[in-house]
Amino acid sequence: MGNSFGTLFRLTTFGESHGVGLGAIVDGCPAGLPITNELLQQALDRRRPGQSTLVSQRKETDTVELLSGVENGVSLGTPIGLLVRNVDAKPRDYQAMNQAFRPSHADYTYHAKFGISASSGGGRASARETVSRVAGGAIAAQVLQRFGVEIVAWVAQVGSVHAAIDAATVSRQAVDANAVRCPDPSAAAAMIELIEATRKAGDSVGGIICAIARGVPVGWGEPVFDKLDADLAKAMLSIPAVKGFEIGSGFAGTTMVGSAHNDALYRSADGVVHTQSNHAGGVVGGISNGESIFVRIAFKPTATIMQAQSTIDRDGAATTITGRGRHDPCVLPRAVPIVEAMMALVLADHALRHRARAGFSAEPTTHV
Amino acid sequence: MGNSFGTLFRLTTFGESHGVGLGAIVDGCPAGLPITNELLQQALDRRRPGQSTLVSQRKETDTVELLSGVENGVSLGTPIGLLVRNVDAKPRDYQAMNQAFRPSHADYTYHAKFGISASSGGGRASARETVSRVAGGAIAAQVLQRFGVEIVAWVAQVGSVHAAIDAATVSRQAVDANAVRCPDPSAAAAMIELIEATRKAGDSVGGIICAIARGVPVGWGEPVFDKLDADLAKAMLSIPAVKGFEIGSGFAGTTMVGSAHNDALYRSADGVVHTQSNHAGGVVGGISNGESIFVRIAFKPTATIMQAQSTIDRDGAATTITGRGRHDPCVLPRAVPIVEAMMALVLADHALRHRARAGFSAEPTTHV
Amino acid sequence: MGNSFGTLFRLTTFGESHGVGLGAIVDGCPAGLPITNELLQQALDRRRPGQSTLVSQRKETDTVELLSGVENGVSLGTPIGLLVRNVDAKPRDYQAMNQAFRPSHADYTYHAKFGISASSGGGRASARETVSRVAGGAIAAQVLQRFGVEIVAWVAQVGSVHAAIDAATVSRQAVDANAVRCPDPSAAAAMIELIEATRKAGDSVGGIICAIARGVPVGWGEPVFDKLDADLAKAMLSIPAVKGFEIGSGFAGTTMVGSAHNDALYRSADGVVHTQSNHAGGVVGGISNGESIFVRIAFKPTATIMQAQSTIDRDGAATTITGRGRHDPCVLPRAVPIVEAMMALVLADHALRHRARAGFSAEPTTHV
Amino acid sequence: MGNSFGTLFRLTTFGESHGVGLGAIVDGCPAGLPITNELLQQALDRRRPGQSTLVSQRKETDTVELLSGVENGVSLGTPIGLLVRNVDAKPRDYQAMNQAFRPSHADYTYHAKFGISASSGGGRASARETVSRVAGGAIAAQVLQRFGVEIVAWVAQVGSVHAAIDAATVSRQAVDANAVRCPDPSAAAAMIELIEATRKAGDSVGGIICAIARGVPVGWGEPVFDKLDADLAKAMLSIPAVKGFEIGSGFAGTTMVGSAHNDALYRSADGVVHTQSNHAGGVVGGISNGESIFVRIAFKPTATIMQAQSTIDRDGAATTITGRGRHDPCVLPRAVPIVEAMMALVLADHALRHRARAGFSAEPTTHV
Repeated sequence: MGNSFGTLFRLTTFGESHGVGLGAIVDGCPAGLPITNELLQQALDRRRPGQSTLVSQRKETDTVELLSGVENGVSLGTPIGLLVRNVDAKPRDYQAMNQAFRPSHADYTYHAKFGISASSGGGRASARETVSRVAGGAIAAQVLQRFGVEIVAWVAQVGSVHAAIDAATVSRQAVDANAVRCPDPSAAAAMIELIEATRKAGDSVGGIICAIARGVPVGWGEPVFDKLDADLAKAMLSIPAVKGFEIGSGFAGTTMVGSAHNDALYRSADGVVHTQSNHAGGVVGGISNGESIFVRIAFKPTATIMQAQSTIDRDGAATTITGRGRHDPCVLPRAVPIVEAMMALVLADHALRHRARAGFSAEPTTHV
Repeated sequence: MGNSFGTLFRLTTFGESHGVGLGAIVDGCPAGLPITNELLQQALDRRRPGQSTLVSQRKETDTVELLSGVENGVSLGTPIGLLVRNVDAKPRDYQAMNQAFRPSHADYTYHAKFGISASSGGGRASARETVSRVAGGAIAAQVLQRFGVEIVAWVAQVGSVHAAIDAATVSRQAVDANAVRCPDPSAAAAMIELIEATRKAGDSVGGIICAIARGVPVGWGEPVFDKLDADLAKAMLSIPAVKGFEIGSGFAGTTMVGSAHNDALYRSADGVVHTQSNHAGGVVGGISNGESIFVRIAFKPTATIMQAQSTIDRDGAATTITGRGRHDPCVLPRAVPIVEAMMALVLADHALRHRARAGFSAEPTTHV
Repeated sequence: MGNSFGTLFRLTTFGESHGVGLGAIVDGCPAGLPITNELLQQALDRRRPGQSTLVSQRKETDTVELLSGVENGVSLGTPIGLLVRNVDAKPRDYQAMNQAFRPSHADYTYHAKFGISASSGGGRASARETVSRVAGGAIAAQVLQRFGVEIVAWVAQVGSVHAAIDAATVSRQAVDANAVRCPDPSAAAAMIELIEATRKAGDSVGGIICAIARGVPVGWGEPVFDKLDADLAKAMLSIPAVKGFEIGSGFAGTTMVGSAHNDALYRSADGVVHTQSNHAGGVVGGISNGESIFVRIAFKPTATIMQAQSTIDRDGAATTITGRGRHDPCVLPRAVPIVEAMMALVLADHALRHRARAGFSAEPTTHV
Repeated sequence: MGNSFGTLFRLTTFGESHGVGLGAIVDGCPAGLPITNELLQQALDRRRPGQSTLVSQRKETDTVELLSGVENGVSLGTPIGLLVRNVDAKPRDYQAMNQAFRPSHADYTYHAKFGISASSGGGRASARETVSRVAGGAIAAQVLQRFGVEIVAWVAQVGSVHAAIDAATVSRQAVDANAVRCPDPSAAAAMIELIEATRKAGDSVGGIICAIARGVPVGWGEPVFDKLDADLAKAMLSIPAVKGFEIGSGFAGTTMVGSAHNDALYRSADGVVHTQSNHAGGVVGGISNGESIFVRIAFKPTATIMQAQSTIDRDGAATTITGRGRHDPCVLPRAVPIVEAMMALVLADHALRHRARAGFSAEPTTHV
């Protein structure tokens, strides 16, 4: 229960941080799309730790292996299984933590819910499960390529350091140009400084990731409950450490009046309908309107810090806990591919759902 | 597709704003709960227009009729059907709009998606469909009463007017004490003034609704995708006019460091585990931790305004549109029961999902 | 839970036999299809009791009312709500039965499962809930008409009376030509005689219904679990009183050898692929192959009979029960439209599911 | 799409016959159940080919590896991933078949549906995918052990050879006592003879498998669509080569009258409700009644035979095909564990679904 995402294009994942490995099954991928180990590996390489001094120093090669659903580099339409084995698990680092619950970490809630929990690391609650999401998102992106959809995410804020980015033109190359994945060079420098200072202090810091999807056709979304923005919200809030989501004008739009907030419609010379502004963020009434879909996601500071914290142990006795092992002072840079993956999964699923019913009325009756 | 909400406790709705009526089927309600027309009617009465001069002057009695699933005021465990007939539909008011698409309204996206749309009002996109949600939420609340869960929502902000509320103690009585549903009397007065000025200007204004759920036991939520906060985010973003969602510290927490943001665990004298602070907003790792669940929802200003706006008509020709009929300059007061209903639906569903597997390991083997 | 059928074209029903009424919501119907009260009424008229002396004498007009999702006789793509109010409920007839459980009836199992049950009739377990299915099936048939699919069901056996029917040419007109819905006139006469004798004896009799779907395109079905024949089996076993399902050669094929059972493939002059024989019944590997889909459904004799039977009451004490009220000695004639409706629901859902992914590889990339 | 089975206890599978491997994810398994590689391996060993001269001579070790969701031999409540690598794939044997479609095999329908198909063997349509089902079923059986449910299946008929079995007492030991898995020794001998003769003739033969579930409590099943028998029917019809399903009296009951078919209720001295007969097969109104659940499943003769058959190739040209490689002349013996696995999956899922809502009315209100 709870480990599947999507209706027609469905990702089901498994795997704990210190178990045998992580993996997934993608069910519903159309046949005929180019899928290879290299494609998935590229996606995972963007996510894995050890890419810079900024992030966790755990050395995982995160080598992905396709197990089914593909032949000669092309999807068969059958379920695609994939596996990433854990290589660098160090249970020893988590020993002290086994007895105590880390504050604001899922240690306690998993233990309370299941009556049992993985002895090492965060188990299923560890952000390591996002490996499976990134792999699934890479497959979803192949579906979207057929529709001409492009997704770019970037770090827009770390702590109080804000970046100035033109969402309309930002590209993945610009995003990946530095270790903090912020395409504003001066802001990036300040972010790197802040993260380093935070690491030395044995603390952690949060931030905001923005994402944009360009080229989404009109009509995706299934109101009134499976609205496109509602599914995006669920997708993003499911990412570890996320505490907020907004689309278009978001919370800022709450202080605007309708005459200023409304996006006037017009038709361009080529007959395509556009809006003058895009406070909607590309989704109106839960359905895409053809404009860019723009979202902002709030990440809290990582729960596991090096500083000592007061807490309780599994017997309920008061105790102190100090972090050991390899931890990210800031998860934002690594979360960028995860946000892109979740967006791709939502859009691919809705692409298929819309396709199931679209253009029905135009079809001729073959016979009565 | 897209009109069902929930896995075990599932609400399916139907109905357009100017059709025969709205309704729903609630499937999965346990047997033995008190459900009556009066219970549902009370919930709907809190929502309907015409309650004050602040909101839409459409006169709907919103009389709900239970059709099945209940006998002698008690649920049978079978699906509960309910119907609310439209009484005061005035298609004439929408005539001019039939030819043109209202900016930032679902007119255009519905037409583009389905190739056809209801000729009157917003059809299925109209906020009137929320009648069904409120009725379903009232049934969900009966499930939650068995667990001792209480939900309260209130208007926290209209335009730039902010209220100061103690979320720990706010009650529904205080919320319903005034027409704008803000339990801070001075802020409420300012909000009423602002709304009236906005109405006279033929414009609209947005705001923020807060909601709290007290008494939620530990353990609700199904990670990694059906996390409790992820499902809450989807629920709220599915409400018309919502553009943002945050839980706990939300976007404000992005500037905090972990040592300050983490909620330290302790055990009280009665053996219950608590946290010193509640930046988590009651959900950690996607699972409830026993603390109050606190969320904030951003509403954009209503799309339909009285002022003239430039747009296009169904042939794509440029035109102007001016609103007529009865419209809310601010939907926030009426959205309060809708937010509570969506929260109740999510929590009731997760209560049942957790119940399906909880405490399994403690059960004896009857025989091998 | 359990009251929805279908993934993309989904029917959700409600209603007890002696409650306010029965109804349904059809979610996922494409826009642009002709749907009217008359269309649904025709379908319900084929089902309702009182059509002949053979079946239950309960006088229900079964008047259906469309509540949403349709405008000017055309579907909007939004959910279609429909309602059939109960008119001729006679709780008094069921009074004696309230204390005792009818053998082989759902009285006991519903009471044990829910801890409570409707006091009158069979409640939700009554075959009356099939009204909603027939209405939903009529809408599904409109989807299928676009693909040129035709469905015909008929009574093939009552008790030991067998009919000889050419499935390839049987039509609904021939089926509806007599009250027992068997298009073999001599068998029909014998069946009518048998049913009358059974009624006089205060007993009941079972039989077999056959159904064929012609014109189903190749490719419908979603292996390995949502195979087309697997979903058909579930659909038919969900009909009250059904105890068996077979497709193609069914149980008879278990004694054949492969060289005789296999259906050889060939291509006709017009390039269409056919099979020489059709032991498969139109489904191979869970996917339709273009040949007619042929199924046989086994109905047990109705549980409620007029003869006295020994049983227990709600306190567990031994007692005797004698049927009163209006009961069918044979449900087969009225079950024919229900079988057709369930087949239509399965096929419509799979039509949309296949459409979501079909022909994907042929689509050009709009841009990279 | 289509590769998941179950709502709360959900099995999702992947894998082609000649790909890297087969596997599955089991989501929803409660925490605290004993799950080990040995447990799964035992289940798979009962299924794999090469166990006797009767079945396919493909040498697969079918070694299963648990990848997640279990620690120290106990389930964590998180998704359980498992993998079985293909070892003995011989693509060469299928070369000639690549060009032609095997009659009554899924070659053609998969190719038509997906526009592409695995070049070797049956791909996803091969019965090899049932490895994943058997592994998932072994986990489901651990859930059922907590309820005291026992499942036994056996071969009841091969071709025209019928066995005489007492379903009430048959045990798995008796079933596994011979290679054909028929616990009637004389019938088993005749079956073995028949299968050998069929193999020599280069042909194949079908048969019937019976299965019984003892100890199922009252109340499992979610009418009106997710009835327990309806889900069992879907489960069994999803197994490759299955063409029919019946429960209790099945097709034979269609010739009985109600007074003979009805199962009279009585209460035994220990207060448990029983039925005098069990024509219902343990399910009434779609809900289990506490009696043994008894089903019969019809298997057609295997499509792939050694004899030459006329067919068409991928260009539609007429051709002849002759089977090579390793094929089962009769799949029945190996299908026995598959039938048990599917029954376990259905029952485990319904156990949890019932548990979610059962006994609700008895719970006290903790506070209002």
